[in-house]
Amino acid sequence: MEYRKLKDQDQDESSASEDLESLRGKPIPAISPVELSKWKLKSAVTIALTVLTSSQAILIVWSKRAGKYEYSVTTANFSVEALKCAISLAALARIWRNEGVTEDNRLSAKLDEVIVYPIPAFLYLVKNLLQYYIFAYVDAPGYQILKNFNIISTGILYRIILKRKLSEIQWAAFIILCAGCTTAQLNPKSDSVLQTPFQGWVMAIVMALLSGFAGVYTEAIMKKRPARNINVQNFWLYVFGMAFNAVAIVVQDFDAVMNKGFFHGYSFITVLMIFNHALSGIAVSMVMKYADNIVKVYSTSVAMLLTAVVSVFLFGFHLSLAFFLGSTVVSVAVYLHSIGKVR
Amino acid sequence: MEYRKLKDQDQDESSASEDLESLRGKPIPAISPVELSKWKLKSAVTIALTVLTSSQAILIVWSKRAGKYEYSVTTANFSVEALKCAISLAALARIWRNEGVTEDNRLSAKLDEVIVYPIPAFLYLVKNLLQYYIFAYVDAPGYQILKNFNIISTGILYRIILKRKLSEIQWAAFIILCAGCTTAQLNPKSDSVLQTPFQGWVMAIVMALLSGFAGVYTEAIMKKRPARNINVQNFWLYVFGMAFNAVAIVVQDFDAVMNKGFFHGYSFITVLMIFNHALSGIAVSMVMKYADNIVKVYSTSVAMLLTAVVSVFLFGFHLSLAFFLGSTVVSVAVYLHSIGKVR
Repeated sequence: MEYRKLKDQDQDESSASEDLESLRGKPIPAISPVELSKWKLKSAVTIALTVLTSSQAILIVWSKRAGKYEYSVTTANFSVEALKCAISLAALARIWRNEGVTEDNRLSAKLDEVIVYPIPAFLYLVKNLLQYYIFAYVDAPGYQILKNFNIISTGILYRIILKRKLSEIQWAAFIILCAGCTTAQLNPKSDSVLQTPFQGWVMAIVMALLSGFAGVYTEAIMKKRPARNINVQNFWLYVFGMAFNAVAIVVQDFDAVMNKGFFHGYSFITVLMIFNHALSGIAVSMVMKYADNIVKVYSTSVAMLLTAVVSVFLFGFHLSLAFFLGSTVVSVAVYLHSIGKVR
Repeated sequence: MEYRKLKDQDQDESSASEDLESLRGKPIPAISPVELSKWKLKSAVTIALTVLTSSQAILIVWSKRAGKYEYSVTTANFSVEALKCAISLAALARIWRNEGVTEDNRLSAKLDEVIVYPIPAFLYLVKNLLQYYIFAYVDAPGYQILKNFNIISTGILYRIILKRKLSEIQWAAFIILCAGCTTAQLNPKSDSVLQTPFQGWVMAIVMALLSGFAGVYTEAIMKKRPARNINVQNFWLYVFGMAFNAVAIVVQDFDAVMNKGFFHGYSFITVLMIFNHALSGIAVSMVMKYADNIVKVYSTSVAMLLTAVVSVFLFGFHLSLAFFLGSTVVSVAVYLHSIGKVR
């Protein structure tokens, strides 16, 4: 009898909710609490990445205004990787204390798990080396423009390597995202980029492919073991980052570090930038695990626009007409991406 | 028996076509011959308008290169209206000879039909008068940029006055069409438009509204009587165009025409331009009757891009990076508009 009553109640409730749905004309897709918390996590890491990326650019402007870089960039990069490693280990220590060591959060890993982690760091290293050579063919503002190839390369590699689908509308959105970002960065001298020699175009495309491949590969690594704790994955990622940056210090700045010390020329703002880069790096990892490369591209594009707007207030920058037009196009791209989900 | 047989055949055919449909997984929407011929007509007038508009711009560049305007612009405008009128009458004469005079193709019309025809011509006149005053606030390249408000005003008035719906995607496409067209026209001096004083912005917006309203009103006139022959509608439209331009001649160029004659300063290229304007005007009317204002906006936007590309070959123009970016965005807008049809 008790059971019967409960059952009836259930039926009543479901028929009531059906009435509600038919009143609204179409059924409401049910969102499970798990999906909702996933969506919240995804949104939180995306917003964190956007804010960190834009504040990163603002710190760079600030540091440039304060004077030339006095520190060696390679030691700063190494410090960023070391800090990310330390943060990951600290987070892990806390988890071990609260939840104990499990299969998913233990630090040790088999060779077949670890062997893929150096690959993104290696790809970024090759890309950064190429960066020195491309300036023989393109000037710095031109390089900023060409860097937008990253958007397209990420989209294509995301499709080919991760085999994830974007809808027609999302592809259209992605193309105008690239055009909009480039438009927003236009300045009266941008047209010089059209005079880039053939070698410059090839290098820009190769660099975009390397960077896109590194991003897509990182996503593949993070998602291959969904249950694996992200801090362990980050630890391995950043350990190899440290190793590659140590090589860069030896190759490029060995004498300076030996003579003037590792932390020579570090100022308050340098330390701030290192912390900011470290946190953005962790945010990127989280976006890779809980969202994807496409979200990352949108996030950094919006961050670029945010940076410009904030710079108006902080540094008295002037926004160009091209910036307004580009921002409009980027905003529409974000909107189209969100309504164009594959059904 | 004969009838029975035919009926069976019919059924067989329809079941065969059903099989074909189920094989493809989803039913193919049937296109009736009437719809197909409508679609063909719509495409033909759109392509005609695009080609005529772009060749119009090329003629303007050509005539500017050949030297200054020696003729009075008001007489040229009057000639365009007169030529359009003559072409409409010639077309009507042919129709009367072939089909006889009917209720739909007779020239005479009741007052309640004719009374609306002067309105678009009047709106364009007011807009053209304002054009002389806006240059007190904005320079010519700035005005070219501000003219892109026309796109947005046409979209809004199309929605409000004609009560026709665009889908979310089509609205997004329309916004980026406007941004893309403006981007394609950017040049290193465009940023000066941001210094436009308040009065300049207001006038630009008023002019965009006048022009948008004239376009939308013309569409309303042409479509109110779908069966009415388009040449009769054009005749009435252009007769009032002639009348308003006659007033403009008297107000602006009375002395010049009296002293030097009506056709003073006309060259071969002037005559070409008048013919081109007349044909484009008729193409616009046809787009209004058989397609709509939105199609017209897309058509003239694509024409603007075509003009630039053709000018590279004809006049050795250089295309800017902004042009490539704007063209990409406009192309995506055209694509999104076509896939975003309201279901």
